[in-house]
Amino acid sequence: MAQVFEATCSAPVNIAVVKYWGKRDTSLILPTNSSLSVTLSQDQLHSKTTIRASESFTEDQLWLNGKQESISSNKRLVACLRETRALRANIESKDESLPKLAHLKIHICSENNFPTAAGLASSASGYACLVFTLATLFDLRLNASELSIIARQGSGSACRSLFGGFVAWEMGQNDDGSDSKAVQIAPETHWPELEAMICVVSDAKKGTSSTEGMQLTVKTSPLLQHRIKEVVPRRMEDMIQAIKDRNFPRFADLTMQDSNQFHAVCLDTYPPIFYMNDISRAIIRIITEYNKSGVKAAYTYDAGPNAVIYAPRENMPEIYALLSHYFPGAAFADSLGMLKEQKKDWTPADIQGFDTGISPIFSEASVKQILHTKAHDGPRVLGTEHSLLNAEGLPKRLA
Amino acid sequence: MAQVFEATCSAPVNIAVVKYWGKRDTSLILPTNSSLSVTLSQDQLHSKTTIRASESFTEDQLWLNGKQESISSNKRLVACLRETRALRANIESKDESLPKLAHLKIHICSENNFPTAAGLASSASGYACLVFTLATLFDLRLNASELSIIARQGSGSACRSLFGGFVAWEMGQNDDGSDSKAVQIAPETHWPELEAMICVVSDAKKGTSSTEGMQLTVKTSPLLQHRIKEVVPRRMEDMIQAIKDRNFPRFADLTMQDSNQFHAVCLDTYPPIFYMNDISRAIIRIITEYNKSGVKAAYTYDAGPNAVIYAPRENMPEIYALLSHYFPGAAFADSLGMLKEQKKDWTPADIQGFDTGISPIFSEASVKQILHTKAHDGPRVLGTEHSLLNAEGLPKRLA
Repeated sequence: MAQVFEATCSAPVNIAVVKYWGKRDTSLILPTNSSLSVTLSQDQLHSKTTIRASESFTEDQLWLNGKQESISSNKRLVACLRETRALRANIESKDESLPKLAHLKIHICSENNFPTAAGLASSASGYACLVFTLATLFDLRLNASELSIIARQGSGSACRSLFGGFVAWEMGQNDDGSDSKAVQIAPETHWPELEAMICVVSDAKKGTSSTEGMQLTVKTSPLLQHRIKEVVPRRMEDMIQAIKDRNFPRFADLTMQDSNQFHAVCLDTYPPIFYMNDISRAIIRIITEYNKSGVKAAYTYDAGPNAVIYAPRENMPEIYALLSHYFPGAAFADSLGMLKEQKKDWTPADIQGFDTGISPIFSEASVKQILHTKAHDGPRVLGTEHSLLNAEGLPKRLA
Repeated sequence: MAQVFEATCSAPVNIAVVKYWGKRDTSLILPTNSSLSVTLSQDQLHSKTTIRASESFTEDQLWLNGKQESISSNKRLVACLRETRALRANIESKDESLPKLAHLKIHICSENNFPTAAGLASSASGYACLVFTLATLFDLRLNASELSIIARQGSGSACRSLFGGFVAWEMGQNDDGSDSKAVQIAPETHWPELEAMICVVSDAKKGTSSTEGMQLTVKTSPLLQHRIKEVVPRRMEDMIQAIKDRNFPRFADLTMQDSNQFHAVCLDTYPPIFYMNDISRAIIRIITEYNKSGVKAAYTYDAGPNAVIYAPRENMPEIYALLSHYFPGAAFADSLGMLKEQKKDWTPADIQGFDTGISPIFSEASVKQILHTKAHDGPRVLGTEHSLLNAEGLPKRLA
């Protein structure tokens, strides 16, 4: 009987509070500035990947959300496989007792528990999960920073999903990318009150891909150079300090300023790139008004119209009430058991000094869904009962 | 019988192609960067002002669009009156034969021929007209640059409406503002093909006033400093050269890039300022797609959602056809007699390589109105038959 080796792992999504936008090397995925993110709980959002190596397999195969995809046409995936196999081959060459996995063909099956249609970036959790699962299968014994250097070559922001909590991606200086890696600033236990609410916003138009968009910005935006050289280095220091101090108002100011500036350099790109729409803007206005009497929430937007709102847990019932007032059509899954804390018959006018006229009520589902989650841990090794492959090495679920 | 002196003048609107955003002195209205605009024809858009000085008047009075307004509470208006009266008093002191006007009370009546609701900035044409009319009444014999220094103190961009054609506002260096003035780069006759289409866009929300907005940007946007110091000085030179060369593609690139960057620094402001909405963005996408096969049109946006599209006359029928395809609810006044050049049964697919899927069709009147106009002359002295005041010195028309 053919020998079979398998690992199944899950990895989290991360949402940056100092944004990554621009590569100095597009093939190694080396960024033009450092960035910093919060890792969100896998209990709500994750990628899960099973990788099996078997002597019976005749070629490498990949299934993504139940659909077979080409491996060879995906250079970034090929790079992650090549790097991890080379490391495994090196270990095997030094220890004859180890099973020979490096030369075996593999089947990769990966799923996200959130719909791609939601517009949530799945490449970060996906590539973090791929590399973490390969490292587990191959027993590479690398630490998360070392793995992050490999995951980075799959998708830049994936490197930050190798850690839980608060994670910096240090841009590094070396041409070979050997110092462009993720490091943990603080674990999630450092600031357990910090939670996030994700607002999934409808959009008529598919946005520019971030891969294309960021290089157009590098090429055409005069303001990006100032952001890279002058703004981000200082902001990284300030953000790290705010996190260490658990200073939410400072963390929030920096988060919102950096989100704004990321979208500003997109707009300074030629032709301009827009990711936020009128609904995104309405959420910004609501949060800005909510913060008038003291900073209680922080919005941030990635390369799409969805808002992520960071806030201490105590403010979340009020923030949810605000959002459901302006976006009554939004579906809400009460994943953290928050609604029991919600006041009945609440209106925004109950917030001292809140100007309720700032935005219209969007009665249609312009915000489709609100997800409640929090800062949490890094990739997890799962038991064999979580395997996504059946006895034949094919996906249990096909799309 | 009391001696009566009167002047009636009109002044044009101007739309900047290198934007003014930020003051280094808010009381003298000294800008943080130079700017450049195109003066649009008074045949379509203008302010008209009658000023009468009479011994029978007991106080200075002002009517704006048929509604009486306070003068004393408007510091900027008071500054323009004080400056012009001081100049008149000086002339009178040197020539005994001149009528004594400087000490007389005046009635000011001013109207715009475009609705304030259209969201078109009327302060530029309004203050240019006020100062030009005062200078005519007082026979000040100042040239347009000299007058622009006074108009600037009413509203910054008003200084550029003292000239026709292509006008730079040189930021100047002096603390007293004596060198912060408008100069004509080229008259409208230099580039008669250049026309403009104004798209009046509906917006649910009233935007931040530009006076407040720009100082918040000066205070909070790190990117503005780079724009001021590094980007605009070079862009001014490039724009002046493009105009001198009548190089439309270059003019258009610079115009669009500067509009984008102005809105980028608004977004980098904290809290962020948004002037464009989803309809503004749709127009940008349409023009960007239209320009794919060669730059044929340039969009620009001031502190509001309305688009101004500059293009050579030959492209205007196509641009109008494009806009009326995507915004069929827009009213169009064929002020320059363009529709007779319009092809029947035209669709965007008739433009080589045009991707018609870039934007939805907005069947409701999301663009309310399209105005067609062109580069034209500076302020005009009008005959007495245009007077807005009746024999009693009161407005002929009240709101």
